[in-house]
Amino acid sequence: MAFTLSPPPPHLLPPKTSRAGPSFICHSLSSSSSSSTPYSMGQKMGGSKLMEFPHLLDPHRDTMISLISAVENCLGSHLLPSSVPPDVEYYQNESGTSQGTLCVRCGIDSSPVDFVLASWLHLEQPTGGGALDITNIAGYMKSSTEVPHFQFELVQCSPTYFILFLDLIPRRDTVSHPDYLKTFYEDTQLEARRQRLGQLPEVQPYFSSSLYFRGVVSPTGILVSIKCEDGGKERVEEIIRDHIGPISNEVAGIWMDMCVGGGGEVREAERAELEKRDSLIKRKAIEMDLSSSLPKQFGQEVADRVLRVIRSVYKT
Amino acid sequence: MAFTLSPPPPHLLPPKTSRAGPSFICHSLSSSSSSSTPYSMGQKMGGSKLMEFPHLLDPHRDTMISLISAVENCLGSHLLPSSVPPDVEYYQNESGTSQGTLCVRCGIDSSPVDFVLASWLHLEQPTGGGALDITNIAGYMKSSTEVPHFQFELVQCSPTYFILFLDLIPRRDTVSHPDYLKTFYEDTQLEARRQRLGQLPEVQPYFSSSLYFRGVVSPTGILVSIKCEDGGKERVEEIIRDHIGPISNEVAGIWMDMCVGGGGEVREAERAELEKRDSLIKRKAIEMDLSSSLPKQFGQEVADRVLRVIRSVYKT
Repeated sequence: MAFTLSPPPPHLLPPKTSRAGPSFICHSLSSSSSSSTPYSMGQKMGGSKLMEFPHLLDPHRDTMISLISAVENCLGSHLLPSSVPPDVEYYQNESGTSQGTLCVRCGIDSSPVDFVLASWLHLEQPTGGGALDITNIAGYMKSSTEVPHFQFELVQCSPTYFILFLDLIPRRDTVSHPDYLKTFYEDTQLEARRQRLGQLPEVQPYFSSSLYFRGVVSPTGILVSIKCEDGGKERVEEIIRDHIGPISNEVAGIWMDMCVGGGGEVREAERAELEKRDSLIKRKAIEMDLSSSLPKQFGQEVADRVLRVIRSVYKT
Repeated sequence: MAFTLSPPPPHLLPPKTSRAGPSFICHSLSSSSSSSTPYSMGQKMGGSKLMEFPHLLDPHRDTMISLISAVENCLGSHLLPSSVPPDVEYYQNESGTSQGTLCVRCGIDSSPVDFVLASWLHLEQPTGGGALDITNIAGYMKSSTEVPHFQFELVQCSPTYFILFLDLIPRRDTVSHPDYLKTFYEDTQLEARRQRLGQLPEVQPYFSSSLYFRGVVSPTGILVSIKCEDGGKERVEEIIRDHIGPISNEVAGIWMDMCVGGGGEVREAERAELEKRDSLIKRKAIEMDLSSSLPKQFGQEVADRVLRVIRSVYKT
């Protein structure tokens, strides 16, 4: 789900910033081998903007690099090189104030992983209200497995205000499938991670403006705002470095264990149901995030180019 | 869902109070006609403990009476008289410190309402930590309709600490059925009610310890704690009287409009799916709330008696 892939993500952002002005960049997974380091990944992808995350606080950048590195190390052998065209891998608006990148690596035939997507966006606010920085890593699964999708999204709305969405997104209705809940959410102790972060006084539950999206989030999903008005930038950096980074890596690790663990196979007859549900989630994500805001931020031509790639990856 | 019908409701209560000691009472809907007043309902039901809510703060009692009255006024013609035996309508533990009541009115054949249930419980804490007061009104629908179930539950954990669960519980997976979400949650403006309550500084999102239960709650469900350490009892009373009461009545009103509005019919072929989902929710509610805690609070004999009635109403 590209819940913050697009500029802007209105359901994830506070009302005042959701119609922010143009400008974004987006970084991506490299096509490097599983033994590569984050630095070498950046170089292999062209040595330009990738893996630079130029607009982020250091711990935010480090968290992204660490997650991308972990995914590549663990799932690299599952993934094909990125096939995103250069003018979608990096794009910007006419004035260059909005920038975006997108990288997608599809799973090889024998992998349960459908694709892994990474991006970062930089949006200069039109009214001089600072910048909006969105980073996103998502892992989507094929319908041959019921293993949840992975989603990490960290949005910097201001120097001291962040929104985090970190979740394993259920493929089934957990009310009708309590065994699914037990296997992927209870037995994996995801709740302990949610609680650890929730104990910080700066962290508050965040309610998306999209009721649909609220239903997509799992019972252990982390959807929070982080406000550090008192502690300032130092406290923000501390929270990202000491809490968000480690917890995100743990959740990503749990997900990758599921991916390579070989469980969760879905019988042929049941795959259509999963595909239908997944497809609705993806279509809604595009509707909510992309189809109206991309043209506004980047103009119709760039938006069409980017949307074409995303729709083809999402198969919607 | 009898999420606080039972003593104690471990998924809804803070860890420290969830294994509270014995004692409860439970009130119920009367079998009075739709034109009856709350007072006359109490009298008609025997004039004894019903509708008294003896242990509650005035605004808490008023809220319950108002909701019961509204349900009876609007749905009275849909409902049969209560058929709960007297020793389940009111019951207590051996020492009389835990008390409970239960009233259930089933829907007539032609009604989409399956049953309406009301109860109140009073639990004296074993360690002298005060009392726990639980009140509950639930309306469950038949599988001939997809109209959500109604649930109101207000728990007084201490003189200044409450938990509220107020929701229309979805009958379908809202991710797979976005039209369902639109009809029953978006178009009905339920979110505005949730937000109004959430704006109070004493009100915080509450996370049930049951991951299953979290999935049952709708995207606009109100599951909150209310802590009034500073304002004391007066502020608690104010919040219940000026906010919880009116909002609960509005949500109940929205639900009753759905009940009598005639929409949401389910085709014969789809009813088994709804029945299966409903049945899982009810079974989980009994597992979580009742099957272990009732015997602890009231002894095996009383627990068996009460559970027999609930299982027969729940058809589980």
